[in-house]
Amino acid sequence: MSAPQIDYPPGDHSRIKRSPLRAHYDRETVHAILDAGLLCHVGYVIDGQPYVTPTAYWRKGERVYWHGSSASKMLRHLKTGPRVCFTVSLMDGLVLARSGFHTSVNYRSVMAFGAAELVAGETEKLAALEDMMERIVPGRWPELKPPTRQELKATTVVSLQLEDVAAKVRSGPPIDEPEDYSLDVWAGVVPMH
Amino acid sequence: MSAPQIDYPPGDHSRIKRSPLRAHYDRETVHAILDAGLLCHVGYVIDGQPYVTPTAYWRKGERVYWHGSSASKMLRHLKTGPRVCFTVSLMDGLVLARSGFHTSVNYRSVMAFGAAELVAGETEKLAALEDMMERIVPGRWPELKPPTRQELKATTVVSLQLEDVAAKVRSGPPIDEPEDYSLDVWAGVVPMH
Repeated sequence: MSAPQIDYPPGDHSRIKRSPLRAHYDRETVHAILDAGLLCHVGYVIDGQPYVTPTAYWRKGERVYWHGSSASKMLRHLKTGPRVCFTVSLMDGLVLARSGFHTSVNYRSVMAFGAAELVAGETEKLAALEDMMERIVPGRWPELKPPTRQELKATTVVSLQLEDVAAKVRSGPPIDEPEDYSLDVWAGVVPMH
Repeated sequence: MSAPQIDYPPGDHSRIKRSPLRAHYDRETVHAILDAGLLCHVGYVIDGQPYVTPTAYWRKGERVYWHGSSASKMLRHLKTGPRVCFTVSLMDGLVLARSGFHTSVNYRSVMAFGAAELVAGETEKLAALEDMMERIVPGRWPELKPPTRQELKATTVVSLQLEDVAAKVRSGPPIDEPEDYSLDVWAGVVPMH
């Protein structure tokens, strides 16, 4: 078995300590998970209180992007460049083991840490919004009414560099205690979509 | 139109300011969304850095619960009772409008704020784990090998009271600018599962 590919050296936040065999620090795995999802959960802190906001996102190169109303609490805060945690998680199946303890979930997830960055220029913002539409419905953007100046102003786009980032993946059947495989209990994976 | 039911008076964190018509503070809506989901995203803060961890959860009465390895970073932190944000979000459809600006997503989400609480006693912990299994595969718990003392010790369960909580829901077709309905652009909702 060759050594695993590491494109993103694990940092203080992204290093996975529990279940290290599920950890992946290579570009291919991280990008594939990001490109399979549409919904992220962004974590940020205001006055010591954590917030977790679900929102649509898209990836371009080594950055993920998300956007929203310039009046939203999240985006008014994030455009000041605070630290965030960006999480994408896809549930693939229920892993029904022969004990509660080994019952689990098959999943693919990515967590990225860093400072959010405002996409500031009008041209850059327009390009980013086109990328988003291209992610959701390829080819649709040129058909739509182009954004007005006012609409662009009312929209804030932020991004996060993929740097302190890791993927965590569980797949395959349940793993029970050796003595439990003979128990008369159905065990296996129930796929989820 | 009668006044909306309010079971959870909106607090500093849970009050929804943007799109207030999408806000729901009634028990029926909050419980229905929580009971439809399996995966939550828990936000917490360690040394100023926000973390967002995806994990399975379940509801009992006016509490949500989640669990994991007692050795996990999240649970070692949460059992000390810090403030968290507990978010559940379900994507129902892509709302394709006639402009990028009005393109949206149909979703149901719940955000709950408060201090995480450790489920401390062995009996309480066992009961909670049974509730979890009952949520995932009703009737399966009695068939499984019961948890050993060691397994129980290796498992940490925490809960959050539903108090500073709100639901946010978008449903229905795209809403475009009045003058845009005549544009020759397909618009509608693409369901997602």
